[in-house]
Amino acid sequence: MPTTIKDVAAAAGVSVGTASKALNGLGRMREDTRARVLAAARQLGFRPNPLAQGLLAGRTFTVGLVSSDSFGRFSIPVMLGAEDALGAGQISVFMCDTRDDPIRERHYIERLLARRVEGIIVTGRRTEPRAGIGQNLPVPVVYAMTQSVDERDLSIIPDDRGGGEQAARHLLATGREKIGHITGPERFQAARLRAQGLRDVVEPAGEVLFGEWSEEWGRQGADILLRAVPDVEAIFCGSDQIARGVAETLRERGRRVPDDVALVGFDNWEPMALACRPPLTTIDMSLGDIGRMAAEHLLNVMAGQPAESGVRTVPAGLVIRESTRVAQLP
Amino acid sequence: MPTTIKDVAAAAGVSVGTASKALNGLGRMREDTRARVLAAARQLGFRPNPLAQGLLAGRTFTVGLVSSDSFGRFSIPVMLGAEDALGAGQISVFMCDTRDDPIRERHYIERLLARRVEGIIVTGRRTEPRAGIGQNLPVPVVYAMTQSVDERDLSIIPDDRGGGEQAARHLLATGREKIGHITGPERFQAARLRAQGLRDVVEPAGEVLFGEWSEEWGRQGADILLRAVPDVEAIFCGSDQIARGVAETLRERGRRVPDDVALVGFDNWEPMALACRPPLTTIDMSLGDIGRMAAEHLLNVMAGQPAESGVRTVPAGLVIRESTRVAQLP
Repeated sequence: MPTTIKDVAAAAGVSVGTASKALNGLGRMREDTRARVLAAARQLGFRPNPLAQGLLAGRTFTVGLVSSDSFGRFSIPVMLGAEDALGAGQISVFMCDTRDDPIRERHYIERLLARRVEGIIVTGRRTEPRAGIGQNLPVPVVYAMTQSVDERDLSIIPDDRGGGEQAARHLLATGREKIGHITGPERFQAARLRAQGLRDVVEPAGEVLFGEWSEEWGRQGADILLRAVPDVEAIFCGSDQIARGVAETLRERGRRVPDDVALVGFDNWEPMALACRPPLTTIDMSLGDIGRMAAEHLLNVMAGQPAESGVRTVPAGLVIRESTRVAQLP
Repeated sequence: MPTTIKDVAAAAGVSVGTASKALNGLGRMREDTRARVLAAARQLGFRPNPLAQGLLAGRTFTVGLVSSDSFGRFSIPVMLGAEDALGAGQISVFMCDTRDDPIRERHYIERLLARRVEGIIVTGRRTEPRAGIGQNLPVPVVYAMTQSVDERDLSIIPDDRGGGEQAARHLLATGREKIGHITGPERFQAARLRAQGLRDVVEPAGEVLFGEWSEEWGRQGADILLRAVPDVEAIFCGSDQIARGVAETLRERGRRVPDDVALVGFDNWEPMALACRPPLTTIDMSLGDIGRMAAEHLLNVMAGQPAESGVRTVPAGLVIRESTRVAQLP
């Protein structure tokens, strides 16, 4: 049990309010009272909670959010989740866009430290492992929706493998067994993990088709898959954009979705998933939860708890729409 | 001509560097020298440039960005443009997402003022006129990609009407005269202005079809237009999403784009415009320029220039892709 301000107050023979004022340097009191409280705090190894101190003093905290995602598609939901955890207005977020430029990133981090931010969240548009921003920074750092290669850092990322598993289980549950997979480039960890999640549940129909993260690849990949596995019953796609392209090719080849071929995407990017014909069942990476967890970690460290490390994954969610409805007889 | 630091230096009989140090309270000098500079500044009505002062003192400035655009599709490009103008790291941006909630917005503005930001940029996902955040704030405010109903405010918005004109002129130049128009809801000023820009150049073929900002409406609108104007030669769409839906219906009805019907969108939202078949000619609202102009206005006011007011439009750009290629003979 860490020492609390109550322990300090008891040891100094004052009220908690007086102990708090003495520790924060606020309020009027006799100098020997203040000295007694400070001595008690030292003796007991009391480590003041900087968050509570700040709130007592009526000030707000500042966190830097360093992002390489110029489109905001991933970083904005992460930021909104962080904002929820930090308390709107209690903590302010400095937003810095690095435009994927390491020199710019270094510059921003120096400026954030010069401005005395109390913590830094690093985020991006890819979960690929990246170099950390350094171990010896004077403030806690957490990686959200991106992953530091340094194991001493804490990285919070979506559960890509679990998402692949969920997609596969849902397709099996709706009666599809021949499940093809069309996804992004194999060099992406996210693509490999999503494919692995599928394989954990069922052997994919045909080769896993690695390509790129685009609709055009979805259109081409669907033709490749239909040639290789003409009786494919479902296609799990590595992104909603790929799924959108797959849906177009299926329609043009006379395959009905979901009656002939069911379709699952990944991202739950609504402009894509909702405009797909039919609307797309997809995996949601819970970006808001990732942001919330990152912010809570910073708050905990600011409040004196030890920094955690390693990679933590946040469960993905399955969003069910029409593209996986149980097949109707023709 | 406002008084400059040169005038003050001349009047006090010191160098500009000495005058600057005296006014900033920096550097060592004789007290009577400092007093002479301050007296000269008072006599000449010198209003120090807070930006230059801050840069001299090695400090950075803080600007709040208040946005109602939770998806970041419009606010992120505006922010990046502002960042360019403000100088990366010279000025830091506090990002606040109001989630379109006026109470939340009010709360954020109070927190930003409590944090002593030096300026506020209000932005959003719609250019529709909205209530201003108030006239009596202690810092300059500018509206970017959104418009205050208060004429004393300065609002910087895209030139929707000019964008409609550009789309029409480009279609005429490529040999299309029967130009239909499918767009968003008529209650949106942006939809009305884009239609007006088209009408400024050419009488639309058939009724202007107001609907919603969605692909589904584009798909339906295209069928309505084809029934009303079977020999339509081009369709100007109020958004890239609408154009995407129009392209799908045209393809399904056997009309080739661009050979039978040319297509122009609005937004230059790349995931939509590039995945369209064929890639979409579209109007770019120059969001980065809007952000840059907003930030420059704040800098000017911080530097002592009078605040401007009214609505300023930023020229849109035409982005030419395959959907308007000059028609080939069948």
